Amino acid sequence: MEQTNGSANLNANLSRGQQAPRQNAQQAQQQAGQPVIAKVHKPENQTKAQMGGGGKVKIVFLGGVGEIGKNMTALECGNDIIVIDAGLGFPDAEMPGIDLVVQDITYLERNKDKVRGFVITHAHEDHIGGLPYVLKTVPATIYGSRMTLALVEHKLREHPGIKVKGVAVKGRSVVQIGCFIVEFIHVNHSVPGSFALSVTTPAGVIFHTGDFKIDYTPVGGEVIDLARIAEIGRKGVALLLCESTNVEREGFTISETSVGAKLDELFEKYADKRLFVATFSSNVHRVQQLLDLATKYKRKVAFSGRSMLAISDIALKIGEMKTAVGNVIDLANINNYADKEVLVVLTGSQGESGSALARMASGDFQKVNLGPSDAIILSASPIPGNEKAVNNIVNNLFKRGCEVVYESLAAVHASGHACREELKLIHTLIKPRFFMPVHGEYKHLKKHYELAKSLGMNERMMALPDLGDCFELSATALKKVGQVPSGSRLIDGTGSGDMDSAVLRDRISLAEDGICIVGFAVDKQTGKISGTPDIMTKGLIYFDEINDIYGELKKIVVNVVKDVDFKSCDQTEIRSEIRKAVQNFLNKTIKRRPIVVTMIE
Amino acid sequence: MEQTNGSANLNANLSRGQQAPRQNAQQAQQQAGQPVIAKVHKPENQTKAQMGGGGKVKIVFLGGVGEIGKNMTALECGNDIIVIDAGLGFPDAEMPGIDLVVQDITYLERNKDKVRGFVITHAHEDHIGGLPYVLKTVPATIYGSRMTLALVEHKLREHPGIKVKGVAVKGRSVVQIGCFIVEFIHVNHSVPGSFALSVTTPAGVIFHTGDFKIDYTPVGGEVIDLARIAEIGRKGVALLLCESTNVEREGFTISETSVGAKLDELFEKYADKRLFVATFSSNVHRVQQLLDLATKYKRKVAFSGRSMLAISDIALKIGEMKTAVGNVIDLANINNYADKEVLVVLTGSQGESGSALARMASGDFQKVNLGPSDAIILSASPIPGNEKAVNNIVNNLFKRGCEVVYESLAAVHASGHACREELKLIHTLIKPRFFMPVHGEYKHLKKHYELAKSLGMNERMMALPDLGDCFELSATALKKVGQVPSGSRLIDGTGSGDMDSAVLRDRISLAEDGICIVGFAVDKQTGKISGTPDIMTKGLIYFDEINDIYGELKKIVVNVVKDVDFKSCDQTEIRSEIRKAVQNFLNKTIKRRPIVVTMIE
Repeated sequence: MEQTNGSANLNANLSRGQQAPRQNAQQAQQQAGQPVIAKVHKPENQTKAQMGGGGKVKIVFLGGVGEIGKNMTALECGNDIIVIDAGLGFPDAEMPGIDLVVQDITYLERNKDKVRGFVITHAHEDHIGGLPYVLKTVPATIYGSRMTLALVEHKLREHPGIKVKGVAVKGRSVVQIGCFIVEFIHVNHSVPGSFALSVTTPAGVIFHTGDFKIDYTPVGGEVIDLARIAEIGRKGVALLLCESTNVEREGFTISETSVGAKLDELFEKYADKRLFVATFSSNVHRVQQLLDLATKYKRKVAFSGRSMLAISDIALKIGEMKTAVGNVIDLANINNYADKEVLVVLTGSQGESGSALARMASGDFQKVNLGPSDAIILSASPIPGNEKAVNNIVNNLFKRGCEVVYESLAAVHASGHACREELKLIHTLIKPRFFMPVHGEYKHLKKHYELAKSLGMNERMMALPDLGDCFELSATALKKVGQVPSGSRLIDGTGSGDMDSAVLRDRISLAEDGICIVGFAVDKQTGKISGTPDIMTKGLIYFDEINDIYGELKKIVVNVVKDVDFKSCDQTEIRSEIRKAVQNFLNKTIKRRPIVVTMIE
Repeated sequence: MEQTNGSANLNANLSRGQQAPRQNAQQAQQQAGQPVIAKVHKPENQTKAQMGGGGKVKIVFLGGVGEIGKNMTALECGNDIIVIDAGLGFPDAEMPGIDLVVQDITYLERNKDKVRGFVITHAHEDHIGGLPYVLKTVPATIYGSRMTLALVEHKLREHPGIKVKGVAVKGRSVVQIGCFIVEFIHVNHSVPGSFALSVTTPAGVIFHTGDFKIDYTPVGGEVIDLARIAEIGRKGVALLLCESTNVEREGFTISETSVGAKLDELFEKYADKRLFVATFSSNVHRVQQLLDLATKYKRKVAFSGRSMLAISDIALKIGEMKTAVGNVIDLANINNYADKEVLVVLTGSQGESGSALARMASGDFQKVNLGPSDAIILSASPIPGNEKAVNNIVNNLFKRGCEVVYESLAAVHASGHACREELKLIHTLIKPRFFMPVHGEYKHLKKHYELAKSLGMNERMMALPDLGDCFELSATALKKVGQVPSGSRLIDGTGSGDMDSAVLRDRISLAEDGICIVGFAVDKQTGKISGTPDIMTKGLIYFDEINDIYGELKKIVVNVVKDVDFKSCDQTEIRSEIRKAVQNFLNKTIKRRPIVVTMIE
């Protein structure tokens, strides 16, 4: 970020940005909910009247509704826009070769002069992973916890062109950004430094939960700030935007500490084994519990996996993670210790190919050779779509003779998202005038809408947002006022396209049936084909069916072009005729329809 | 099958095969476990001594161990082989364009003269779907229930060259096949006519459970034949081969009738809506319950989806499904009835693109337009890997305003496989000398092995089979004696390949980064390049990065070939040089490594 130049000194860097004032609980109580406003970012030459925007606020949904991931919501009032989160999405099976997916940010680019800041609820990829892409064309200050800013800074090192200022905030910090007064409310979630947002606007308070759960016994932090949430609710919230991830799950999410208790049992059970625990690198509280258990059971801890090394390093430096000096060792040194003295904490819990765990499981990891004296705990749930990859790893680990513990066998993971009873509590405390569910596929939003209805919410006071929807909130109404460009921008190396891009269409077709390339030369004098055509295929013809298929294809091509005068013909038409003839033949003989390309030299 | 010529008259057809004698429970009791042997297939010129095989039997695992699907196990003794099941597997994301997966049957082809029959436990695709492929080179009689034979016959109609005899059997039928005496034992499962097998061999009894559950309140049939299983166990079983699908699930599988009760509630709840229920077409008992509920609630039933139409037709014809005449109507006629008078039973519960349900959900199905007056019940669990596709359909249905009920909300599906307590019961009744778990990924087999151990089984009496493993069973020992060719044969239209085939490798690569085709002509006289090269790409270059990338590529190619004399050069080497130069450039500029093909004319 600003003037950082890749320095690892996060404290130094963050102090260059402005630090929002911290309020402690006492102060807050004394002020009876009167937020201290820190005017940390107020554009010059802007009067109070301009800031007002006529008591109306626009809510623009650019990501995270009707889908899981790439969260982004813009609040707009007069000449001010703040953007809540800028996450990425993960490509699915219909996006071969795509690295990641971000939002269509056309709307922000068109209104870039209004964008006053990015307010980031927490440091997960689906909330920060899109920042490098949006900041390139829409630069603005980033507001978030120290943990969030540290991970954003780490991410931006791979995008050296981007310079941006970060403002670190804490629970109950209040900042004015344009005409918006944003208060950050501590919530429980699976990464430290997670916030809900209470945004005071000219149309009333908009409360955005971010991602949260209610954990009465959290690790290394405090219980979600229910007192402040209740207070905000009591004073009146115009609009609640609440996450919906776990709305299909009854009851309460289990506490992070109960996962710790289960892990403790397993440390006890596998006291003589070398221990490996795979989890999300950003789940600092889980890793903290592992560090504490390592101390209890006198094991040294080695981290493995790029993001695990990076995030644990950052978390230790900024104090979000703590362990005694000397407890952490290098993976290369684990063989200097007895099995029972070693704990390896690593990535790969989602079955990612190329991860440390996947390579260890398949025996393709030089430093670590797994066997019957090892116990591996997968302390994570497979994200939908990753089940098969995770299964493969579990199978490989069993084949190596390891002990393996995974979710279907033991409660070694806790979700970071509120289940139905937790959602009900937040709805009841906030008691908003209007409600829109966010962060979920359509089915989640719909179920959340019905949950609100079951709590007595009037359907006229609710709406189901869709991608690109633009709503207007006033003191008396919430209504849809339009639609902005929206969708998925697919990032592939240095390039990008949308879901309709020819690149993606061709890749899917190439994967299905391969390609047939027809090539021939044309005699410059006569304009006729010279010699015989060449046929080359990729991903099309199996060894057992080659026979004389290439000979047949050559005859078919010759048949189409033998009388053609290439000096005068319409080459587009000829190529199309060749394509049709070749495709018809192949469809008839081998039941496949490859892409057909003709090179005429 | 034999002399069938695609006739729909299944009864006529099956009577041409031989019908094994049926024993009822009484007879069986009188005979105190002495099976009546029907020598329906005994090769000529084979003496009893030849049949003995020296008291040793080989068990060859050709599919279904270390994997879910493509089940196939061969039992071999002297000159006789029987093959238990011949299923297919479904291609995963690493097999683009592949239609289905079957076994490597090299071993059976090499020993085709010994193969006396295919003994099919039940009619699911992962047990019968490979038959058309193995029968082409290894023809032999098929033994199975009427339901199984009817579905096999239906399947074989698409492979007109195959002629084969079918022998219909019932619960407690006993047939001698070569030196094997096979008794069919009725089990509960999610398709009618499912059997476990008790195979009497010169090395003792081998009991193969097939796929099963224990359902004390089954639909349209009897409880699994526990009495006979107990009797067989009491008389002594040498080897138990037991399925492992649900070994990770505690307790008992819920009964099919309790799904019926849940469906009844939903019929009540949605009394005024048009009702759609998606389920597996082979789950005849589920469909039977839906037919009964339709009668109870005065709805007409329309089937939709190719396999639903085919299987319900077959099941009604052979009496496995029953409903009053006139209850079933054509889908095209549902608009002649009020919403509350219609039930549509359809396929697509796995999110299959192109299925009736997927097309209805996306509004792409002419005959049916779904909306707020419709309720859709997904009466099936997503098979791992299908979660996303099913989610998409649920989201689309909600978007159309339909009521949608799916598994995470209500118990509208029951598994067909035994959970841990059911497995324990079977182990306890059979009490085998030796045990090997089958039908499961390695993790399932391993957990099943541990379950047997927890029941007191000695580890020296157990083994974990892997694909291609060949075990030998004698009166005193079970030992691994070798390995036969095994693995996956990928079927793609008329072609087939294995996992190492260049076609598959190229498709995966094409999907990831596309292809770059370089073409140029060579002057026949000078042997030098003539004109400038052509560059064409597919699935590689995004619109936003074209710039002068094609111009640059041409320069790079010219640079490599400008001084080359193609009359004397090594073309393979030149092509390789072009590939490297092009790949290096693209990797540097756009961070992608496509396949590069050069056409020299």
